[in-house]
Amino acid sequence: MADASRVFPADEHRARVAALQEGMAADGLDALLLSTAADVFYVSGFLTRFWESPTRPWFVVVPASSAPIAVIPAIGETLMRRTWIADIRTWDAPDPVDDGVSLLVETLASVVPEQGRVGLPAGPETQVRMPLTDFRKLESGLAPRKFVDATGVVCRVREVKSEAEIDRIRATCAVADRAFARVPEIAAPGRSLADVFRGFQIALLEEGADWVSYLAGGAGPEGYSDVISPADNRPLATGNVMMLDTGAVRDGYFCDFDRNFAIGLPSDAASRAHAALHAATEAALSALRPGLQARDVHRLLVDGLRDNGALPCGGRLGHGLGLALTEWPSFTPKDETVLRAGMVLTLEPAAEVAPGRILVHEENLVLREHGAELLSARTPAELPVIGP
Amino acid sequence: MADASRVFPADEHRARVAALQEGMAADGLDALLLSTAADVFYVSGFLTRFWESPTRPWFVVVPASSAPIAVIPAIGETLMRRTWIADIRTWDAPDPVDDGVSLLVETLASVVPEQGRVGLPAGPETQVRMPLTDFRKLESGLAPRKFVDATGVVCRVREVKSEAEIDRIRATCAVADRAFARVPEIAAPGRSLADVFRGFQIALLEEGADWVSYLAGGAGPEGYSDVISPADNRPLATGNVMMLDTGAVRDGYFCDFDRNFAIGLPSDAASRAHAALHAATEAALSALRPGLQARDVHRLLVDGLRDNGALPCGGRLGHGLGLALTEWPSFTPKDETVLRAGMVLTLEPAAEVAPGRILVHEENLVLREHGAELLSARTPAELPVIGP
Repeated sequence: MADASRVFPADEHRARVAALQEGMAADGLDALLLSTAADVFYVSGFLTRFWESPTRPWFVVVPASSAPIAVIPAIGETLMRRTWIADIRTWDAPDPVDDGVSLLVETLASVVPEQGRVGLPAGPETQVRMPLTDFRKLESGLAPRKFVDATGVVCRVREVKSEAEIDRIRATCAVADRAFARVPEIAAPGRSLADVFRGFQIALLEEGADWVSYLAGGAGPEGYSDVISPADNRPLATGNVMMLDTGAVRDGYFCDFDRNFAIGLPSDAASRAHAALHAATEAALSALRPGLQARDVHRLLVDGLRDNGALPCGGRLGHGLGLALTEWPSFTPKDETVLRAGMVLTLEPAAEVAPGRILVHEENLVLREHGAELLSARTPAELPVIGP
Repeated sequence: MADASRVFPADEHRARVAALQEGMAADGLDALLLSTAADVFYVSGFLTRFWESPTRPWFVVVPASSAPIAVIPAIGETLMRRTWIADIRTWDAPDPVDDGVSLLVETLASVVPEQGRVGLPAGPETQVRMPLTDFRKLESGLAPRKFVDATGVVCRVREVKSEAEIDRIRATCAVADRAFARVPEIAAPGRSLADVFRGFQIALLEEGADWVSYLAGGAGPEGYSDVISPADNRPLATGNVMMLDTGAVRDGYFCDFDRNFAIGLPSDAASRAHAALHAATEAALSALRPGLQARDVHRLLVDGLRDNGALPCGGRLGHGLGLALTEWPSFTPKDETVLRAGMVLTLEPAAEVAPGRILVHEENLVLREHGAELLSARTPAELPVIGP
């Protein structure tokens, strides 16, 4: 878990805020209003699992040129005081009459002129984490100030990771690598997928995860039918391919990759599909360069699968990663984001093995000037086999 | 993990929808738009950890008198088809141009007349889980239809749990009870709180949790300074009081309670504070009845602490529980919610042991006509002692 030795130095956060403020200036924003776990952690270093409770909103305000201000429920004050944030304003939440709205109005009004603009992430892959009715009160309380979408400002800064962030993501990936190496001890023919899920989460914790925010997967003859289901109690059977996909967390940073395992010797179709996924990933890893667009990576993976005789499926074939399980950009045919050095990304091609049966493979990497540097240990081309 | 034998029968979901539709009729709503993990699971039975990814919005539309309609990313179709929902409409998400908005407009327009009203949870303790810009497009795309707050409709139905739900919450509480009983094997003087957190999460999984969505706690001389921090690497020391507070999940239902442990013999002040928390909880457990308001429970706990010589602290002293770690109502001085039989609640009094040092105690219960029925095993009045 996070402690003083692992928390980022204040300079890391100052550099992030400076980069945000540069983007704000370019977009003519007088303040930035942040409300999600990832954005608040990014600016402040405030790390807690308490976001799991939907009860209370939390805010960080980034003014145009001064230090960030935390506007938070009193229950978080002690923890926020351990971060670099000096200006911390609290209210007794939850308050059914005024749940921080007047305090937030007052705070924003003090840093945004009447004709000014408040930016907040309101575009693709964002949410404003507060009650809609309260957001409307905020808008009217701050009029004639305007709220505008600042997704671009936040996304362009968060997308490129610092070396300190890359180190943390690499450490989380290493936790998952060690846990995946133990799957042959955890899974066996006859064991239920639910038991494997529990055993794999235990392995992740034993290997150093602070917590396991995400685990999904599947198992079935030659492949699985979807990739977001929780486990069921059916026993693994010879001929199944099992997949585990995890978003473990260490020091607030996620990994997100999966591994496939054949239960007993795999069919030719499953072996070929896995080899094609591996080859398509290999081709994309070789071709990745700053300057490509996100949609180019989608195309690389689709072409790689077809070139290796596999039938591509799935919508998004990879994405950004770091403070959240999934971040911008998205490797889809429509995402025109230009890739830059320092982006941490996943490659996640999917192939159909038989009607309704798929295999998905995923690796994590950081994009360097010269190309991809893997953060997850490269999976072998051949499907690992478990059991007799 | 959820499987066919543990998923609710369709009749459970039909009864929930009928209750929602009754409330919608009373409030003059032509449809209800739901977008959060808890609300979507409540109506459909759709259970996945994929909500951890902020990328994609998910929707369930409840029309005034017909069956619910799922409007979801294609990646969720296979899993949604395993639920009782028959009308499932999908789009390829994420789509930076139209991320389900036009499909949602079309769906809502087909069930809401032009002069009609769409309700959505927009009040206390809610969020609309979609990009704000897309919500604005939805509003203008559906005009002159109006969006109105339906927090009351959803909250009044979700607050009162069915016996099937109570059984599930009881089962999750039992998992945590068994794990808490093992804490003396997990914690010891000299061991770091971070190691204890990992060990306790492992125990929760071994005892039957599907996953552990929440764990917080603290340790310090006579008490801890806050209750939402992740663990640090400092070793537990004799004279510390350690607290673990968990929201484990089984079959989609949460527990949320904590336990305190003295590391070595506790000080008189810590012992007295724990005894006062126990006595105040006991008094509230005896007094709880349908018909009380949420704020009355806050008063009962504060009075109980004072009567036992303790200094009350903290804002909210308990809350609803079930599909989420925390739900309505909130035991604060301002919450006027009337308690009803079938509500699953937590009692969570906090006392100051010394300046900046607190103890918090929490139990889970279901409110019956005759009073409280505990779902967590009652903690002893005396602080359990760990170590020599």
